[in-house]
Amino acid sequence: MNTHLVPDVLISEVGPRDGLQSVKATMPTANKFKWIDALVAAGLREIEVCSFVPAKHLPQMADAAEVVRHALKHPGVTVMALVPNLRGAKEALRANVHKLTIPVSASAAHSLANVRKTREEMIEEVRAIVRLRDEIAPGVKIEAGIATAFGCTLQGEVPEGDVVWMASQCIAAGADESGLSDTTGMANPAQVRRLFHKVRAAIGDKTGAAHMHNTRGLGLANCLAAYDAGVRTFDSSLGGLGGCPYAPGASGNVVTEDLVFMFAAMGISTGVDIAKLIAAREPLKAGLPGEPIYGMTPEAGLPKGWSQCASSIGLVPGA
Amino acid sequence: MNTHLVPDVLISEVGPRDGLQSVKATMPTANKFKWIDALVAAGLREIEVCSFVPAKHLPQMADAAEVVRHALKHPGVTVMALVPNLRGAKEALRANVHKLTIPVSASAAHSLANVRKTREEMIEEVRAIVRLRDEIAPGVKIEAGIATAFGCTLQGEVPEGDVVWMASQCIAAGADESGLSDTTGMANPAQVRRLFHKVRAAIGDKTGAAHMHNTRGLGLANCLAAYDAGVRTFDSSLGGLGGCPYAPGASGNVVTEDLVFMFAAMGISTGVDIAKLIAAREPLKAGLPGEPIYGMTPEAGLPKGWSQCASSIGLVPGA
Repeated sequence: MNTHLVPDVLISEVGPRDGLQSVKATMPTANKFKWIDALVAAGLREIEVCSFVPAKHLPQMADAAEVVRHALKHPGVTVMALVPNLRGAKEALRANVHKLTIPVSASAAHSLANVRKTREEMIEEVRAIVRLRDEIAPGVKIEAGIATAFGCTLQGEVPEGDVVWMASQCIAAGADESGLSDTTGMANPAQVRRLFHKVRAAIGDKTGAAHMHNTRGLGLANCLAAYDAGVRTFDSSLGGLGGCPYAPGASGNVVTEDLVFMFAAMGISTGVDIAKLIAAREPLKAGLPGEPIYGMTPEAGLPKGWSQCASSIGLVPGA
Repeated sequence: MNTHLVPDVLISEVGPRDGLQSVKATMPTANKFKWIDALVAAGLREIEVCSFVPAKHLPQMADAAEVVRHALKHPGVTVMALVPNLRGAKEALRANVHKLTIPVSASAAHSLANVRKTREEMIEEVRAIVRLRDEIAPGVKIEAGIATAFGCTLQGEVPEGDVVWMASQCIAAGADESGLSDTTGMANPAQVRRLFHKVRAAIGDKTGAAHMHNTRGLGLANCLAAYDAGVRTFDSSLGGLGGCPYAPGASGNVVTEDLVFMFAAMGISTGVDIAKLIAAREPLKAGLPGEPIYGMTPEAGLPKGWSQCASSIGLVPGA
């Protein structure tokens, strides 16, 4: 049980980026503002609010700078943006984000398909982004997220040595942290424990977030396994939006509501108020009418006796 | 990796009992036969095929003896039935089942509501069933499944001491094993580990199955936690049928397909062939037209490279 003001784990909400860029519809800017406000009100302290990519490729993200400007009004919230390259990083740094995340594939095939660069070229891109950051915004943190760390739909198995090598190279290139992403929903708990241990052995405290998908229902089990392996930052998406769901009922990203429920039930504090988190589904629904959203805890409701339980473990929203 | 003929874990399929008695429609007997045949063909070696309760209360189970007779034709399969009392046990033993499971609530309120008996009266019922078994069918195994072990929708929290006490009393009354059921979908992984450790400390090797629900999405995480705590038998239901789902998308029982996928991906053998397991959804659908069934793995399909992976870990269907 947590009696401190700092929660035991950090939930990094990726819905406004990962979720919104995965759906066809574009959420109007004003709705994005309301949704982000509701996420902050629920106690989320790190939010990936957008990606900086050419609007012709991703019209859903055309208002990225404006969204960042709005999110920055919330004190105490780390405002993140995804940038696939130096050009995106330049725009994001100009917009004054607090943290950049760069997707770097461990799978050679996925790297070429996703960013049209080899893995070695992406490491050079990380180095160039770090150099730019050092010049114009030295306080900004840079995370390299190792995509396809647990398997690839193009090349199949991804050797664990490749993952450790990519993470180490990104840190050597100056990234502040490197997390592991189950881009394709192929991870299993044994692999998650093993691979996070290996990465930690290589880069120590610079080991970053677990970004798990729920493609085959293993999302929370994999987060539990990552927690067991010492991970304390978890990416997830409100309503499980995004992360390439394959089919109705099969969400992509881990559902923030269920993840927060799991940790809170275990007595691991997240700083997030579940009732307010569930309320934050309303602006999401209003901004994306008709889009399916997921989550078992919102459907089932909180268990009998929950309020006592939640207060006894000292949840501190927004602390 | 398993190189033996005996799988590492036993998946105890409860769909034909727990699933079918939870839905309004009655599956025709001939369809039950086909479904059970398909489950056996997929490699399942323990199946809870029915419950012995008065047909006026559960018309879905009116053909229980006939279903048992059919299931017994499959060599190597443990044919189980649920019995709530001595009367049901008598019928089940006459039908020649291999194993009885008796639901025994750790929650005083749930015990009265579910079987109209106090917990102490249920322990006496277990003792009477054991006596009958000893007289007329000494080879039959008896499991006491501790219902509401992780919380109760009627009384809220269930003291862990009550759960350990109930399990110990059932074993003292002659039950061969006692497992823990998350009847209400309130369990979390920390609690699952803690409670299975406590029960094992009390009854040792007589600790039975983990029967987890997926009400709030934690089903697989809780099974992983139970595995970590030494549990090697897991109840689940094909298509997640049964277990009182609260809402569309919120399945009740852990989905057998996802559970088998998780273990197989971890290199923990189950003896179950996932492709044939997914095929066993067809007779289920045919026998219950229009009934929603769940499962992420069947929706998403198996990952690229899966067949090599599965064969490398030595899956031995039906062994």
